Amino acid sequence: MRVEGWSLHETRDQATNIVEGVRRRGWVPPIPERVGVERDDRSIGDVSGNRAQALASARLVRGGDDDEAVDGDACLLAEAQIRGAAEPEAGAGAISGRNPVADKDGPVGGEHAPRIPEVTAHLVEAGGKRLRPLLTLAAARICGYGGPYHVHLAATVEFIHTATLLHDDVVDESQRRRGRPTANLLWDNKSSVLVGDYLFSRSFQLMVETGSLRVMDILANASATIAEGEVLQLTAAQDLRTDERIYLQVVRGKTAALFSAATEVGGVIAGADEAVVRALFDYGDALGIAFQIVDDLLDYGGTDATIGKNPGDDFRERKLTLPVIKAVAVASAEERAFWVRVIEKGDQRDGDLAQAQAIMARHGAMAAARDDALAWVAKARAALERVPEHPLRDMLADLADYVVARVN
Amino acid sequence: MRVEGWSLHETRDQATNIVEGVRRRGWVPPIPERVGVERDDRSIGDVSGNRAQALASARLVRGGDDDEAVDGDACLLAEAQIRGAAEPEAGAGAISGRNPVADKDGPVGGEHAPRIPEVTAHLVEAGGKRLRPLLTLAAARICGYGGPYHVHLAATVEFIHTATLLHDDVVDESQRRRGRPTANLLWDNKSSVLVGDYLFSRSFQLMVETGSLRVMDILANASATIAEGEVLQLTAAQDLRTDERIYLQVVRGKTAALFSAATEVGGVIAGADEAVVRALFDYGDALGIAFQIVDDLLDYGGTDATIGKNPGDDFRERKLTLPVIKAVAVASAEERAFWVRVIEKGDQRDGDLAQAQAIMARHGAMAAARDDALAWVAKARAALERVPEHPLRDMLADLADYVVARVN
Repeated sequence: MRVEGWSLHETRDQATNIVEGVRRRGWVPPIPERVGVERDDRSIGDVSGNRAQALASARLVRGGDDDEAVDGDACLLAEAQIRGAAEPEAGAGAISGRNPVADKDGPVGGEHAPRIPEVTAHLVEAGGKRLRPLLTLAAARICGYGGPYHVHLAATVEFIHTATLLHDDVVDESQRRRGRPTANLLWDNKSSVLVGDYLFSRSFQLMVETGSLRVMDILANASATIAEGEVLQLTAAQDLRTDERIYLQVVRGKTAALFSAATEVGGVIAGADEAVVRALFDYGDALGIAFQIVDDLLDYGGTDATIGKNPGDDFRERKLTLPVIKAVAVASAEERAFWVRVIEKGDQRDGDLAQAQAIMARHGAMAAARDDALAWVAKARAALERVPEHPLRDMLADLADYVVARVN
Repeated sequence: MRVEGWSLHETRDQATNIVEGVRRRGWVPPIPERVGVERDDRSIGDVSGNRAQALASARLVRGGDDDEAVDGDACLLAEAQIRGAAEPEAGAGAISGRNPVADKDGPVGGEHAPRIPEVTAHLVEAGGKRLRPLLTLAAARICGYGGPYHVHLAATVEFIHTATLLHDDVVDESQRRRGRPTANLLWDNKSSVLVGDYLFSRSFQLMVETGSLRVMDILANASATIAEGEVLQLTAAQDLRTDERIYLQVVRGKTAALFSAATEVGGVIAGADEAVVRALFDYGDALGIAFQIVDDLLDYGGTDATIGKNPGDDFRERKLTLPVIKAVAVASAEERAFWVRVIEKGDQRDGDLAQAQAIMARHGAMAAARDDALAWVAKARAALERVPEHPLRDMLADLADYVVARVN
């Protein structure tokens, strides 16, 4: 079996057995037939096309001789929880064990709100890298966690991420995500907004299940920081005064906050020392920043196939991302007039994207931004030195390299 | 001082003193000058125009001789928390005491994301009835709660409600709310979506502050139920097969879930007996259903000034609300053709709204829906008999009458 971005087990039988085991334990609602049995003939890494991540994923599964089943289960449980969101009717009841409305008058949800599984499945099945839940599972495991709640937390983190994607696509009026048409294009903005809200709520239900106030505090704060970052980005767009400091705030909000929360809660749920929790937070923070810088670079330099979204989106949306900020900072008078026209005034013509790329190349803005990303990767790796030795610690280090390898 | 829908204290000096007291206690961030000192010369009830609610509010404040300061503080603290959301930068830090990003690199938020206070203030200052936080404060007080967290919960409930309104206006493409242009009209859909997300996140931060897992469970479930109800409404709209059972599910989701959670958490935070908690839940559930039925009636019968939104919105959005469902159920062949055209096909012409009203009047659909609302009010009042005697219990009973009095 191959779940995009994660490599769990090799054969359909094994996958089916685990799904069955998960179901018997009452962890998740019955999983639709299509889940987990359709992608089994893909080899490791053929989706991301990147060997580093494939290796990292493989190591998560095969970290130790005795651990394979446990880790495989953890990944699959998290995956199942994530997919379980596509079945709201069973989902809310199965996980929370409490739904007074449903108790009294039959379920609200799936039966009459088929839009939720439709929209969720569209996005969840497109896959994505599942980086964030992987971070949580790995952090908990590195810190020796033996309980069940890292799975809830991994799913929580992915839900928050997915909800954010749905809302982002409305905000950005995006047309493609993860190589597919966006939900707002296939259905409508309404569905994206409301299903996003649903996933947000489900994420909070899941984190409440852990019973850890500190974990809830961290994730609630991360959610607020994400929302602030998004609003900040909205107002910083089209404003050439946006500098690297503001960019960093935006990036911390929209991306790094969830990465650092993902790693931090893994440590917290495991009861790790404060110094280790802090190190995990720092790793996630630096990794998230590097990840976003690279994402922003890809929007100017990646090919359509690499990034799964339309290149040039940021340019068309007049976002001040790092390479642009660097180019604007050293612009000649003529170049500045160009930036004012295309970014501030939004007067974009054919060939402007190529012109922007040429200006950035002239000033080495792309290379400089990539150097920044590499510096954040170094910070991420340095933070890991304060984390206990563990094969998965090495996996996290590889992951940091993988993030930047996308623009090699 | 007069905060719309709540009557707290009569003079500007008193209000200022309390705001100062609140600030000194470090409860909330500094409150902008405009808050709490502009509306003091309005007499009780002149905004809602409804004496029953004014009396209910007055009783909340003046329930007992010694209680005035305490209750007044609670209301004002809740109000200040609600308004505090308009200041994200100070807000998150002041309430959660933790914001790692802000700690390290300066605040994310207010300074650079002015859209948050703009949009929030627009909606918060328009007032609204503040019914939901009032329910929480009253329920906690009836159950003898002496701690500080009912205020957090009241604010949490109002935040969830406000976030829902922002997203609803995007979904419904509404143009007016609380008698003002909607935020999506004044700014854009993006701002409404993202600021709504921000308020959702803040609501979870606030509820985490209470440290009560059960409270978090209730509110997280309520949020999920609300989101499901909204999606269900989306798919039930334009579908003439929608019957009263589905309508009840939609209403429980979109409205009653938050009413019942508001009253339930008041009891839970006070450590009330299970039977009392259940009674408070039942009261909120029935009150919420009655409230929504009346709201739906007003959309066909109210004048522009009474409801603060455009009458006929539901008709234009082809929503299957109770009076329409009742009229469709007994429609003649000719009437059915009309409903199919205007609701299912969405082919609406001048005069169709009046025609719909005439058909509903012919079948007594409005009166029948109002009878249903009255029956739910009776259920709400009956539930209160299982709640300890208290002046505020009588206030809650009055409130139930008030809700239906809007269509008298």
